[in-house]
Amino acid sequence: MKNIIVGIDIGGTTTKFGLVDDQGVVIYHNSIETQVREDFRDYISDLQEAIHDSINKVDSSLRIKGIGVGAPNGNFYRGTIEHAANLRWKGIIPFVELMEKDFRVPTIITNDANAAAMGEAIYGNATDMKDFVVITLGTGLGSGIVTNGKLVHGFDGFAAELGHVNVNPNGRQCGCGRKGCLETYVSATGLKRTVYKLLADHLEDSELRTHSFDELSTKMISDCALRKDIIAMEAFEYTGAILGSKLADTVAHTNPEAIFILGGLAQAGDLIFEPTIRHLEKNLMTIYQGKVKVLPSGLPNQTAPILGASSLIVNHYKK
Amino acid sequence: MKNIIVGIDIGGTTTKFGLVDDQGVVIYHNSIETQVREDFRDYISDLQEAIHDSINKVDSSLRIKGIGVGAPNGNFYRGTIEHAANLRWKGIIPFVELMEKDFRVPTIITNDANAAAMGEAIYGNATDMKDFVVITLGTGLGSGIVTNGKLVHGFDGFAAELGHVNVNPNGRQCGCGRKGCLETYVSATGLKRTVYKLLADHLEDSELRTHSFDELSTKMISDCALRKDIIAMEAFEYTGAILGSKLADTVAHTNPEAIFILGGLAQAGDLIFEPTIRHLEKNLMTIYQGKVKVLPSGLPNQTAPILGASSLIVNHYKK
Repeated sequence: MKNIIVGIDIGGTTTKFGLVDDQGVVIYHNSIETQVREDFRDYISDLQEAIHDSINKVDSSLRIKGIGVGAPNGNFYRGTIEHAANLRWKGIIPFVELMEKDFRVPTIITNDANAAAMGEAIYGNATDMKDFVVITLGTGLGSGIVTNGKLVHGFDGFAAELGHVNVNPNGRQCGCGRKGCLETYVSATGLKRTVYKLLADHLEDSELRTHSFDELSTKMISDCALRKDIIAMEAFEYTGAILGSKLADTVAHTNPEAIFILGGLAQAGDLIFEPTIRHLEKNLMTIYQGKVKVLPSGLPNQTAPILGASSLIVNHYKK
Repeated sequence: MKNIIVGIDIGGTTTKFGLVDDQGVVIYHNSIETQVREDFRDYISDLQEAIHDSINKVDSSLRIKGIGVGAPNGNFYRGTIEHAANLRWKGIIPFVELMEKDFRVPTIITNDANAAAMGEAIYGNATDMKDFVVITLGTGLGSGIVTNGKLVHGFDGFAAELGHVNVNPNGRQCGCGRKGCLETYVSATGLKRTVYKLLADHLEDSELRTHSFDELSTKMISDCALRKDIIAMEAFEYTGAILGSKLADTVAHTNPEAIFILGGLAQAGDLIFEPTIRHLEKNLMTIYQGKVKVLPSGLPNQTAPILGASSLIVNHYKK
């Protein structure tokens, strides 16, 4: 009888799940749409059915050791998804309770960036690190902080909301209701906003003038920057400058060995890493300079969220 | 045979030390001047002699269980004091090695704010907390961060330098060589700088116009504010506004149950607590609002640094 862990990554559009074996190999993965059902109970039923189906398909003798879940506003302490801005179900969803009722195995939930941090610790580039930070750059900016070898959940389970440290109290409007939060500048959406700001302020020719805001993607902006489009290059410089300067404050909090930059925007590689590192170093206190590594994920892009979620269970049994 | 812990608090002017019994009572305390000796080895010899003398004086059968030390730039991992700006000895001082050679008991050093945080955890107002932050407002701004019940030292032993998060990249000159660090605004010295800035910008009458910068103290500014001196009141408002807004960023890092505000400036009580709490709440994300306690120390003012230092040893034996 083979043991497996179920890893689930809940996104606004798609819920990915996979079966992960003891060697950290994703032996099967699939997905369902997240928001087609009006009642979250129906969504969770669909997900449970899809997991049961997948096990029957792969090997019905598989034994589930546990279920790890990364979800927007996933609360580690309460096993809930709480007031997630980009999910249709408002209020508090008792996700862990409903999963444990069906599967009768330990189920652990946390936010997606915390799951990504644990993924780096168990399977990725942080296996020998006790103090590091993970930044995920997608639609927003998520983060996970590890100190003394443990994820920081904080008093109430909402630690590491670095997307909402303040860059400018009179700055860009944020989905959280405040102004000038880091993720309004540093994220896939933030990069698009910066492109539009630069197009408004400057007269330079740019391929980017031919695309609507809704069409624009990180990939398009990256490709333009690689072709030396001045607006696109400046947008990455501006993004890296803000991220680097705010990460200097993060270093002054937990003095990490490394900061991992993951997610869609991280795929832009040096376009985002180079200015971020340069501005981070420029803003660090002398005692930190030259000592903080800024690194990409050590996990395969496609299955990283599933591995990250499943690593919560690996960590649970390690104790 | 009674066990005691030696607690040592090294300040720029005075080194305080005390003998702390198993009940957390400081049964004896004394001090020596810190910087009269040119060679740090002579200073450490003087300190060792003073500790031996104190034990002989109190009860020569006392058995030392360990020595805890709070010091500027004390490095927990290496047992050293490194490049402390306000000590005359430059470079790296192997403090723990020299103490252990004489006393042959476990000796632990860390920076003074970390020692204060451990003091709150063991003896003070944080005995049942696992996630909290300590801010010490003296000449500068020191800090200690506890997550998952443990002090955060970070990768290199220099975590929690919140005095050097950035308020304004073009702001006040800081002793660290950069500009606009939090402690240039929020500290006893920062408050004085704010008073002088306000006196320069405004025409209001103020008692504070009769004092030189060097004469000015937190106590004088507090007393003026209590007498409704507009400049003094505005200086506290300005200080609390900056501290509150930056603490909101700290909450977004580690989601603490409480933030303790200690040190000379904290003695101003509501003058500093009220605006700090108001601006903290104003700047917090909704998920944190109304949930973070801002508290004074639970330790007696005079012996707090000695208790804090000694608590490092209590914590050492708890493991």
